[in-house]
Amino acid sequence: METEKVVEASRSWIKKHGHEILAEYRELLNLPNHAADLPNIERNCDFISAMFAKRGFNMQLLRLDGAPPIVYGERLVPGATRTLCIYAHYDGQPVVPENWTHLPFEPTLYDGAMPTGGQPIPFPTSSNEDIDDEWRIYARSASDDKAPIISLAAALDGLEAAGIGLTSNIKLFFDGEEEIGSPHVDEYLRTYDYLLNDITTWLLVDGAVYPTGDPSFKFGSRGRTALQLTAYGPARPLHSGHYGNWAPVPGQMLARLLASMKDDDGQVLIDGFYDSVIPMTPFERSQAEQAPNIDEQLKDELALHSTEGGGESLNLRIQLPSLTLRGISSGSVGEKARNVIPTTAVAELEMRLVNGNDPDEMCDLVEAHIRKEGWHIVTEEPTHEIRRSHKKVMKVVRDPESFTASKVEMDRPEIQEIINGLKAFTKDRGVFLPATGASNRIYGLIFNDIGKPGICINTVNRDNNQHGADENVRVGNLWYGADILSVCLTLP
Amino acid sequence: METEKVVEASRSWIKKHGHEILAEYRELLNLPNHAADLPNIERNCDFISAMFAKRGFNMQLLRLDGAPPIVYGERLVPGATRTLCIYAHYDGQPVVPENWTHLPFEPTLYDGAMPTGGQPIPFPTSSNEDIDDEWRIYARSASDDKAPIISLAAALDGLEAAGIGLTSNIKLFFDGEEEIGSPHVDEYLRTYDYLLNDITTWLLVDGAVYPTGDPSFKFGSRGRTALQLTAYGPARPLHSGHYGNWAPVPGQMLARLLASMKDDDGQVLIDGFYDSVIPMTPFERSQAEQAPNIDEQLKDELALHSTEGGGESLNLRIQLPSLTLRGISSGSVGEKARNVIPTTAVAELEMRLVNGNDPDEMCDLVEAHIRKEGWHIVTEEPTHEIRRSHKKVMKVVRDPESFTASKVEMDRPEIQEIINGLKAFTKDRGVFLPATGASNRIYGLIFNDIGKPGICINTVNRDNNQHGADENVRVGNLWYGADILSVCLTLP
Repeated sequence: METEKVVEASRSWIKKHGHEILAEYRELLNLPNHAADLPNIERNCDFISAMFAKRGFNMQLLRLDGAPPIVYGERLVPGATRTLCIYAHYDGQPVVPENWTHLPFEPTLYDGAMPTGGQPIPFPTSSNEDIDDEWRIYARSASDDKAPIISLAAALDGLEAAGIGLTSNIKLFFDGEEEIGSPHVDEYLRTYDYLLNDITTWLLVDGAVYPTGDPSFKFGSRGRTALQLTAYGPARPLHSGHYGNWAPVPGQMLARLLASMKDDDGQVLIDGFYDSVIPMTPFERSQAEQAPNIDEQLKDELALHSTEGGGESLNLRIQLPSLTLRGISSGSVGEKARNVIPTTAVAELEMRLVNGNDPDEMCDLVEAHIRKEGWHIVTEEPTHEIRRSHKKVMKVVRDPESFTASKVEMDRPEIQEIINGLKAFTKDRGVFLPATGASNRIYGLIFNDIGKPGICINTVNRDNNQHGADENVRVGNLWYGADILSVCLTLP
Repeated sequence: METEKVVEASRSWIKKHGHEILAEYRELLNLPNHAADLPNIERNCDFISAMFAKRGFNMQLLRLDGAPPIVYGERLVPGATRTLCIYAHYDGQPVVPENWTHLPFEPTLYDGAMPTGGQPIPFPTSSNEDIDDEWRIYARSASDDKAPIISLAAALDGLEAAGIGLTSNIKLFFDGEEEIGSPHVDEYLRTYDYLLNDITTWLLVDGAVYPTGDPSFKFGSRGRTALQLTAYGPARPLHSGHYGNWAPVPGQMLARLLASMKDDDGQVLIDGFYDSVIPMTPFERSQAEQAPNIDEQLKDELALHSTEGGGESLNLRIQLPSLTLRGISSGSVGEKARNVIPTTAVAELEMRLVNGNDPDEMCDLVEAHIRKEGWHIVTEEPTHEIRRSHKKVMKVVRDPESFTASKVEMDRPEIQEIINGLKAFTKDRGVFLPATGASNRIYGLIFNDIGKPGICINTVNRDNNQHGADENVRVGNLWYGADILSVCLTLP
């Protein structure tokens, strides 16, 4: 099926039935959905199950004791050789109603974004009322992450109305605890493996489009590990007059170590730091390079003159491991500053990891560097004897919250065929990023733990106040979600 | 007069009249003496005035509105060409009585220090009772700084009884607000200049003997200045995943700057940092070198393997300016550590200064170094435009609490004659240090502001709990104070 016809089907359905889509979405957003509020979680499950049951899906609620159910569904297509699974989450962040302009579970339509002067308007009731793309619906989860659910419903209806058949088996996997860290999803994946192991590719629909407003797609996220470093000076705080220029100053010693780890341009100087990186494929690099460069806009927003990496773009820089001094402390600053030589200095170093980096091996490299700089490393508070025996003693504590990157190679055939389908729709506007710089638990569970490929699809507006008060979705982004899911449902 | 005879006079008086000295001291220590408690301050003044009036001094209370009086006295010696002024302070630190074993103004005699098992004993009432040097008197200001007052009284009595005359005019200047920073002493010195301008040399009697227990004398203290440095990163905290390896990290940038200021051995690398130092005279250096080396003992106490300056002794190191990172902070450490790139990093740099160092010029050198390292310096929060225009922007704020060193050259003839007299008493045990590493307001007022030479004489035991609960003085140190003041009163 040609992409144009598919999108036309989506758009013509929306044009005629937009008011009905918004009415159905209003009902869905009317249901409180914090993961801990299990009675309301069940109401969400029932509503969503009914939505897709009437659209030809066999629905069931996957259950584990005490956990929000997974809303699971499947619609099998005779002769299909590909099975796509659409992931979204129906739970939302907790709300503080007094911070909201309207109650968070009383969806309110606006004729534009509040900060730009948008005003409340009634929901439309017939197809005679034109619906503007700039309208906003204000409600908890309007963007994050019920939007893909209503977009999918609209896409299915549009294709049905146009008589366009699905080309893949479609499964639904709607998570009910993403905002509390999806603590049961790994167990769900293992327990219900028999329902999921035939999935070819996951479509993870969550998050906002690229800063330019262009559609964006991602194929992985960075891993993470961290180290806490403690440098030791005198055993008790010393008067900086009586002992200054004689007693070693732990903050100064730590600063020297940190300076040795990274040059003025942000290049990490630790031996082997970049050696285990599995480089991007030529295709991946070309995609990262083609993404619109938002660096100048960001630098202005962040009041930055320049960035690490000598001007290499953010999109390329996040495809490499990072070493970030996220915290440092010794003595006191400001009004609490005292004339002392402090006893210790502490640094918190975080690393974001890419494909090929093992968290433990990366920590090993940092420790090897610390030793090379003449430090004696301990893992617990050093004894008097240890401090007396070594000029520079450092306690290194590794963060137990460490994990590898989650990355799907964009060159894989089952990914390529989806990318090709999507590109026919996005034309020259699509942003295909090999990986996001942040870390994502769901990617890890799917790409690493169960070893399935997937694509993260971002559909909602960036200014959606995700997680905060006055969360909202731009109506045009709901329609955009329907378009793109229509394309996915009808891939050649 | 030969030193032996003078000390013999002191000791034989103490042997016969020790119980009377302690009785008089008990009365003095019975008087509460916080500088803000003006009624009790007056009682101290009256008591001390009476003490020295009966010992041949013309006494008067110098007064300024709202300030504790200076207890001033003079005893002129016909034909004397030298006028010595003895400084001590009769006020004490505030007390928290519930932390004390006995009430702070109910002096209690012990047969040894409490921590070594000393037990309370009655005050002696006759010369038949032997007084042990190890006895302690527990009371606020027993050491700091009423001890020199009672030692001086004993010294005067001993010389009188032995028929040994004073060889200098003696003036007394007893401060009543030292523990709150002597805020009126500069005004006292100016207002009563007509009483003080004929003083040849001040004897500042305060503080504890050398760590080895040896008598110690000092001729100055270091100055001080400080800078607060703030390095700027992104205008808002950034997610370390989304932006790590692209956004500049202010703590890392600051660490590189700090590392460039000082080498691994503690040598300051700032151009010109040591250039303005007026070196010690050969005599001063020889005295600093002869002081017993306490470094190994200190290093063990402080759990240090080594010190700045490649093993040069503490006594020599404090004769040079210091550059101490007394505080650094960026982001958070420990349980509060978050995955962010912080917006700023702050360092507190303190310098202790020696003779020749001007605080402003030293700050200029630090700023020149910062510029040399490529930073743009501002003195107020930088604007968006400034941050956009410079790769590295640093706010530098100078500490208004800055002052030069206060130092008397030990080679001065009026100082040399006192040193010679003291050395005849201390033999090879005296510790004559060119300067202490800390800063001292009184030294500054006398050595710098009114330009008079002086010597700081330390007489009390180190374990005196100065400023804390259970302050005490070792009785042997009161006798030692009497000996040394006897020597000073009878210098050739």
